[in-house]
Parts: sequence; structure tokens; C-alpha cells
Amino acid sequence: MHRTVAQINEFMATLAPEGDQGLRVLEVQGDGLLWCLMPVAALHLRPGGSVSGPSLMTLADTAMYACVLHLGIERAEMALTQSLHIHFLQRPQPGDLHARVQALRHGRRSVVLDVRIYAEQGQQLVAQASGVYALPPESSPRQDF
Amino acid sequence: MHRTVAQINEFMATLAPEGDQGLRVLEVQGDGLLWCLMPVAALHLRPGGSVSGPSLMTLADTAMYACVLHLGIERAEMALTQSLHIHFLQRPQPGDLHARVQALRHGRRSVVLDVRIYAEQGQQLVAQASGVYALPPESSPRQDF
Amino acid sequence: MHRTVAQINEFMATLAPEGDQGLRVLEVQGDGLLWCLMPVAALHLRPGGSVSGPSLMTLADTAMYACVLHLGIERAEMALTQSLHIHFLQRPQPGDLHARVQALRHGRRSVVLDVRIYAEQGQQLVAQASGVYALPPESSPRQDF
Amino acid sequence: MHRTVAQINEFMATLAPEGDQGLRVLEVQGDGLLWCLMPVAALHLRPGGSVSGPSLMTLADTAMYACVLHLGIERAEMALTQSLHIHFLQRPQPGDLHARVQALRHGRRSVVLDVRIYAEQGQQLVAQASGVYALPPESSPRQDF
Repeated sequence: MHRTVAQINEFMATLAPEGDQGLRVLEVQGDGLLWCLMPVAALHLRPGGSVSGPSLMTLADTAMYACVLHLGIERAEMALTQSLHIHFLQRPQPGDLHARVQALRHGRRSVVLDVRIYAEQGQQLVAQASGVYALPPESSPRQDF
Repeated sequence: MHRTVAQINEFMATLAPEGDQGLRVLEVQGDGLLWCLMPVAALHLRPGGSVSGPSLMTLADTAMYACVLHLGIERAEMALTQSLHIHFLQRPQPGDLHARVQALRHGRRSVVLDVRIYAEQGQQLVAQASGVYALPPESSPRQDF
Repeated sequence: MHRTVAQINEFMATLAPEGDQGLRVLEVQGDGLLWCLMPVAALHLRPGGSVSGPSLMTLADTAMYACVLHLGIERAEMALTQSLHIHFLQRPQPGDLHARVQALRHGRRSVVLDVRIYAEQGQQLVAQASGVYALPPESSPRQDF
Repeated sequence: MHRTVAQINEFMATLAPEGDQGLRVLEVQGDGLLWCLMPVAALHLRPGGSVSGPSLMTLADTAMYACVLHLGIERAEMALTQSLHIHFLQRPQPGDLHARVQALRHGRRSVVLDVRIYAEQGQQLVAQASGVYALPPESSPRQDF
């Protein structure tokens, strides 16, 4: 059973670390593809108003987590980042950021995801990330993997 | 002219975002190899006392930046992360973290770095990262690259 | 001046190593997006008819190179792979492979690219790669970068 | 039961694709750390005698596989590369290459590995790679993971 946008946002809001708080899922476009919004107020800014690299990494990781929550995996909230790779492409223009996250592969042990982060209402591509989330063993009901 | 440990720490302390504040260089072991300390108080914790993935990424990125500051590059403080890749290996035991960062290649345009993050006083390897820092064009006096 | 599909294919055919020989650009879809074909005969096969991981890495790297050749960069043929990251998603079904390669960022010093590799006439996503090509210094006529 | 150097080399020699053939394990230095040799004759050369990027990726992947074979995992020969990341650091001087491969983490589902590739009898670091090998489910006798 896939979580709805409202269910994911409700769960994300309960997470403690500040890094995760601001992210909100805007839309599910079927097939494991989500759009997320990260309000600039939730992000660490560099002098000059630019978003820091670590904040972009946090946004990428959190968007991946939101996508895993959406996929209908049992105990998905126990999934853990196994690896993450990011290219910083351009210094973001000031303002809110959007993330487009897509599950490229959903296996029994892990999910591989691609994230694109945009500034300027989706007009400026500022980062590309990919990552692997390891799923909890219990996510497979029959333990047959 | 390479910056000393004290000079790097003095500069790092002036940086604004909380993510960078705690890191302190402990020792330079020659040839672009540094050991850094990240006090647990400076890190975002997950429920249960474990350090979050984004905090480990921030630590890896900041340790790389400290190493670039050390290398004696002109205007090194203008260097920017171009890409970062991290493997999360184990959930860190509670307590301070140490990072061992090493420059693998120091070219005219960029520096490639390797980072190992440890918990338990260096006994538990919790993450391995590598990354590329792009150097400011002005770092080469003769513009001949 | 961008190279045409015919010009890229003519140049690629002159390259020595077997790894590069089979790749052929099929179509340019504007804005630095190319589709390439890698006939199975050009690929190293594993027992059972599956394409090997190193062959997929070679295909990803070669598709990126074809895209760099297309971008209208001076002396683009001198560009060199700086880094490459690949996720192997599924074991490819036997048959020719297709690669969709896109330039995510085209700067003065480097190009960042994304590659998706498909089997089954584009129906099966078998790998996702990203990479950075370093451009030759001479590609900028005024040396002002 | 860990495989010996002779056992690994005997098995590697039976593998079909040319990319794997040349690699030979030279020495095990305990704790999942191996040194391998890749004779230049086994490598694809670029005009000028330099080793190609895809050949370095093949060497990195094959060295990781040799290390997995060494770790004493059941049915280790069924392990598959899940992801690979490589930084090309310097153009290798002509001659044989050496690889130092180390298992950073050996879990029930996967092994994370680091590889350094050297030319010039170990004096010139030419590439750094890391990767994940997925282990076959059968490698755990009790299926309790």
C-alpha cells in the first residue's frame, strides 16, 4: 500500500533533525516519481544568500527518503542511506528549491534513486544526485530473498 | 605557503553555518593528510544518539575543505565542492567522530580527496567518502592552465 | 559549431580500442541529449549471453565522449574522463543496448553528463551512470577561465 | 574458509572475458587487503601507450572481485557489482599496473571496497575507485538476514 502525499508529509514533519524538517512532497507523478519543495527558510545559507553544499546533500537524501516512504515498502521508515553521490552543477539562485526524485530500481534489498535539484521555480538545475537506500530485512514478508 | 593547524582552525571558526562550526583540525601528517575532530555536540543526532547521514556528509565535506585550506593554494577559501560520494558503512557508536582526510591529487583546477570517518576513538570506520574541490581560477598566478 | 551525427560516428569509427568501436550515435534530440546504439557483437559477453559490467562502464564512458564531441567544444576529442559513477540496476536481456546521454552542465573546464543504458529496445533500464569530462585548456580561445 | 592467493588466481584464469584475464593476485596482507598485478599486455592501450579509462575501470572491478573471492564468502563467485565510482587522477606511465584493494565493510548482503591503482611500480597513483559487490542470498547459511 503506497503512502499518499499527505501521509508522507505528516510523517516527515515528525522527524527530529532540522535538516529534514522543511521538505514537503508536492506531487506524485506515478511510477515512483515525486516532486518535493524545500523552503529556503529551512536551509542553511552561505554568506550572500546561496544555499550551502551540505544543505543540498541533505535535501537530496531527504527527498530520496520521501520517495522510499511512498513506494509501499513495509517498515519503509527503517530504510537507511547506503551511499550517495552528488554533482554540484551551479550555485543556486536565492529562493526555494525543488527536488525531482525517481526510483530507478526497487529491489528486495535496496532502492536506487535519482534526484535533480532545481532553483528558480524549476528553471535552474543546480545539482544531480543518486543514491541507494538499504531496506529493512523485515520488509519482505516471507524472508525468502 | 601552507596554512598551519592553528590558522585553519581560526578560519574555520569564522564560518557561519552550524554544520561547519564544530570541526577542528587535530594534526597534519605531511603530504596533504589531516586528522580532524567533530565533537558530537556539533552534530545532528538521530533518536537513539546516532549521528545522522547528512551530518556525516557535512563532516566529510568540511574535512575536505580543511585539507584544501592546508594545501597552500592561493585564495583556497574560494574553493567549491564539485562532487562528493559517500558510503555509509556502519551506524556510528555515540561519541565524537574523527575524520582522516587526504589529498589524492592536487592539480591546477581541482583537488581530489579521500575521507575516512571513524567513531570510537578511531576504532570504528563508519563512512568513506571521496570528492572533488574546484579551485578558483585565480589560484594560478600565470593563468597558464 | 556542433558536430553532426555523421561527423561524430565517422570520428568514433577511427578510435582504436575495441571498447569504443561498436558505439554509433543514432539521434541528437537537441540541448545536448543523444541516443546511441551499442551492437551486442561489440560487447564482451558473460557466460549465458549477459553483457559484463566492464562493458557497460565502457559503453557509458563512450556515450559520454560522443556527447562531448557533439557539444561544439574546440579540440573536444582531447577531453578526458575525470570521474565516472555507475549503478548496475538489472542484468541486461540479451541483445543490443541503447544509451541515452545528456549533458547536465557544460562549463569552461568540464562537462557533467548523465547516461541511462537500456536493453530490450529501450524497455529495460539496466544501468545509470554519471561522469565528468575535463575539457582541454585550449578549448577556451581567450584563456580567460 | 578464505581462498588462498593460488586458489584465487586459478579461478580468475578460468574467466572468459579478456578484461579479466591478465589480473593476478600478488599478495594478501591480512584483513581483506590484497595487492594485484595487471600486466600491460592485458590492457587496452590508447595511442601513445597510455592505458585507457575503461581498462582502468575493468582493472578496479576485477580487483574488487578478487578481494571478494578471498573473503571466505560462500558462493562468492556469484557476487555482482552493484555500483562503482572512479576518479582518474593521472595518465599512467607505460608499464604494468598494480592495484591495492581493501574491503571496507563486509556485511551479509554486500561488501564495500576501496581500490587504488598505481603505475611505476607503485610510485604513481593513477586512479582511486570504490564499489559495492552484492553477495548471493545463499551466502548466508541460515537465511536469517
